[in-house]
Order: sequence, then structure tokens, then C-alpha cells
Amino acid sequence: MSYYDKHVFFCCNQRDGGRTCCNDKGASALRDYAKSKVKALGLSGPGKVRVNQAGCLDRCEEGPCVVVYPDGVWYTYVDQADVDEIIQEHLQNGRVVERLKM
Amino acid sequence: MSYYDKHVFFCCNQRDGGRTCCNDKGASALRDYAKSKVKALGLSGPGKVRVNQAGCLDRCEEGPCVVVYPDGVWYTYVDQADVDEIIQEHLQNGRVVERLKM
Repeated sequence: MSYYDKHVFFCCNQRDGGRTCCNDKGASALRDYAKSKVKALGLSGPGKVRVNQAGCLDRCEEGPCVVVYPDGVWYTYVDQADVDEIIQEHLQNGRVVERLKM
Repeated sequence: MSYYDKHVFFCCNQRDGGRTCCNDKGASALRDYAKSKVKALGLSGPGKVRVNQAGCLDRCEEGPCVVVYPDGVWYTYVDQADVDEIIQEHLQNGRVVERLKM
């Protein structure tokens, strides 16, 4: 069994030189939001959920992106409502959110 | 199938206040080493291996730590030789390195 049941990594990369990057699309703010929400819902901790920032996941052009392991499911999102749906559907109920899948 | 066959996250967290953290144990330097080595071996890219830094994976006391997904295998390491063994055994050959498992 995985140490975390759902380990979530937000690409929070900041590219320079004007290249597309997740952080220009609000990644860090929405990662902070997700982390707080997961904690408030009592979902965080070993055997449960962990939300992390990560360096560049190298899919910035399709992003902002987040990946849920060990499932290996990748999502994109645009706002808090999308993040809420990923939390409620996938992290709480184990159902993949098809409309946000990359 | 997972976008990356092996997605590797190094905890590179820098805690303040003198608390134990992976970065005080050389995490960032060894993450850089791993990333370069994986690239040099031609292992990096979609369908293959990706090495990322991550925020705190919350196992710093047992660390420095690294996790390989989607396998969900956690390792600790002390030097380049340990990182080399994880790359050669796990990332190249798919064999878990039992002696370094957390």
C-alpha cells in the first residue's frame, strides 16, 4: 500500500523568457488553495492525501497541470471550481474527473 | 499507461528553525545529480523517466527521501552511489532496491 493513498503534485514551475508555464496560469495560488481545502476536509496525512508543489512536470503547454499518484491521472484546471471537483470526486470519492483529464 | 513510466520526486524542502529537513542533507544537489545522470543515460522523457524536485513530502525525519511513482516506492539515500543504484536498479531495470527502502 502506498504511503499516501493519493499523492498530488502541482507543477508550479516559473519559466522565464515569456515561455508558457503553469505558474503564469495561477498554479501556485491554486496549489495553496488545494492544500488548505484538503486539510480543512480532514483528508491530509499518511494513508490519506498529500498535496505538493513540484518543479516542472514538462507539460506546461497543456497546463496548468496536476498529477495524482499512484493513479497516474493528469488533470488541467482553470479555477477553484475545477480544483474543488478534483478534490471532491477524485481525492474523496476515487472517481476520475473525465472532463479535466489531460 | 502512465505518462511517465517512472516519475521521481525528490523532497527538496528547506525547513527553517533548525528542524530536520531533506535539503540540509544534500537533497537538492543529489536531485540535480540524478536529473543529469538520467538524461545522460537517455532515460528521460515521456514514456520513460522524469526527475522532479518537490516541496516537503513530510518524511524529513527519515530522509532525505525520494519517491518513485506510479510504483509508490520510497527511498532514502546518502550519496551519489545510492542515487546511482536507484537509477540503475529501479529506473533502468525495474528492480526495487530493498536496502534503501524506507
